[in-house]
Amino acid sequence: MTPEELGRYLEERRLLIDEALDRYLPGAGDSPKEIHEAVRYSVFAGGKRLRPILILAAAEAAGGQVEQALGAAAAIEMIHTYSLIHDDLPAMDDDEFRRGRLTCHKVYGEAMAILAGDALLTQAFILLSAEIPPYPPLPKGGRGDLEGVRSPDSYAHGRASDAWGVDPEARLKVIQEISQAAGSKGMVGGQVVDMLHEDREVDLPTLQYLHEHKTGALIRVCLRVGGILASAGSEQMEALTIYGERIGLAFQIVDDILDLEGSLEALGKRAGSDLRKKKATFPALLGIEESRRWANRLASEAKQAVVIFGDRGAALAAIAEFVVTRRG
Amino acid sequence: MTPEELGRYLEERRLLIDEALDRYLPGAGDSPKEIHEAVRYSVFAGGKRLRPILILAAAEAAGGQVEQALGAAAAIEMIHTYSLIHDDLPAMDDDEFRRGRLTCHKVYGEAMAILAGDALLTQAFILLSAEIPPYPPLPKGGRGDLEGVRSPDSYAHGRASDAWGVDPEARLKVIQEISQAAGSKGMVGGQVVDMLHEDREVDLPTLQYLHEHKTGALIRVCLRVGGILASAGSEQMEALTIYGERIGLAFQIVDDILDLEGSLEALGKRAGSDLRKKKATFPALLGIEESRRWANRLASEAKQAVVIFGDRGAALAAIAEFVVTRRG
Repeated sequence: MTPEELGRYLEERRLLIDEALDRYLPGAGDSPKEIHEAVRYSVFAGGKRLRPILILAAAEAAGGQVEQALGAAAAIEMIHTYSLIHDDLPAMDDDEFRRGRLTCHKVYGEAMAILAGDALLTQAFILLSAEIPPYPPLPKGGRGDLEGVRSPDSYAHGRASDAWGVDPEARLKVIQEISQAAGSKGMVGGQVVDMLHEDREVDLPTLQYLHEHKTGALIRVCLRVGGILASAGSEQMEALTIYGERIGLAFQIVDDILDLEGSLEALGKRAGSDLRKKKATFPALLGIEESRRWANRLASEAKQAVVIFGDRGAALAAIAEFVVTRRG
Repeated sequence: MTPEELGRYLEERRLLIDEALDRYLPGAGDSPKEIHEAVRYSVFAGGKRLRPILILAAAEAAGGQVEQALGAAAAIEMIHTYSLIHDDLPAMDDDEFRRGRLTCHKVYGEAMAILAGDALLTQAFILLSAEIPPYPPLPKGGRGDLEGVRSPDSYAHGRASDAWGVDPEARLKVIQEISQAAGSKGMVGGQVVDMLHEDREVDLPTLQYLHEHKTGALIRVCLRVGGILASAGSEQMEALTIYGERIGLAFQIVDDILDLEGSLEALGKRAGSDLRKKKATFPALLGIEESRRWANRLASEAKQAVVIFGDRGAALAAIAEFVVTRRG
């Protein structure tokens, strides 16, 4: 896959995921509209949708269909967005900007931002446990052609069935893995350790632990969920897991480098903000050169792991390359 | 059931639920221990465990076993506790005391309290989707005899199966109903409306809407979840739903009355705190007399609804009576 092909692929997927998020979130006018406005403000703030794209790519690599994985993909992005809203709060990282826009609490107030995060985390599980209609092929011209398709809400009181094209036990397994990755021994635990070490020296093992939990656990689970939804075998699951662990850490190392080098325009938040807060980063501990070398090595290992998927793994391989070469 | 029998029944169930919570929450020493300490501080703050007791009572009324319902019962109490932790935050109700103890953020700080709430909400879904070992009969003498029993964690990476004694589709349905009750169109939505009306006059329909969402939705779903886990038929589900709606509202009306009449000793929070904050309450709108009459009428309707369960519904009937006669 050439960089141009990957660019088109990522853009196509991003649109598909935005469409799914639009369908699977309560409407901006749904009551109480204040919370749904705040939720949508943060969800549609222009993210790259890397995590949900990884779910789709993993499902396809393992021989599954994108349609089976779109619900879980939207759910993961909801959980990711909730974590950003709560991390940005005054009591946490106290960030005013995110992706170049004011953070949720700056626009809607602290109480509404806390509740918007709570709502998004809960909505992810509403979606994951819902009887979802098979996702229709997307029309070219936007949402118009989708009118009349039953929304997930209209299924909410029906019996959960096999509409995902996945048996109910596998869907429970997806909920189990996602909730563990997001919980106090995963993402939330990573944020706890991050909070506890603010303004304190940390060593490399602690920094690695922190990121493997705070961001790594959720990225890793994307690959596994894609695999589970596609009924991947154990060898495939192992390959996807290794890939997920490697690019999860590589992603964070590159994030640290970009934060150090970046500018407000490129990153959408104030450059060097980690440094200003004396947060531990990989370049601070290892230097930029060594950090880049490590990230590249992790990306190579990730690409090596997905060789077993042959052509179907091309997107995953290209994404691994993208993670370490991106400029923002 | 006499008041004494109900007293023993509630105490027995409370111990059973505390034991389940102890088993299904990460240990206080589990890493990162700061968050698990904060979580346990709030969960074991001496609640009445009304919501989980309702799940067990509903399951038994519909012919099910307590053991099948203990996991869901513990999960509901986790969600209830998360909502209290977040509601107490400075940006929300700004409460210093809860059940006579300092609130989570007063002890562990705001960041940890936000994360403890997030962790509890997520842990509920870890538990609901987990392969749970059949809950062993409880030893009389506390936890000692339970050592060696596999903890839920040791099942976490296994395949979700029928260990709850409930088929996987029914378990997805339980997750669906609980997440909807807790989400932005349920409990979170109620808290949003509460926030938006602070220091403002509200009329009775708004107050009723607020409580049907903020506290009613979660109480209602307890009854339905008990029914689903016991494979209740549609007539039974209807009766449990009516019961849940009636006592949910009755509970809140009595809470308002007790807050007005109560004292720090009786309620564990500063008496009249709703009034000081100019929060709308039922007695403020209707007077104490009329509020009591309404609560009693709701309790009667709840008792009437569960007559169809015969003797197996005796506990539910006694609980409805208790909800409107309790003094704290």
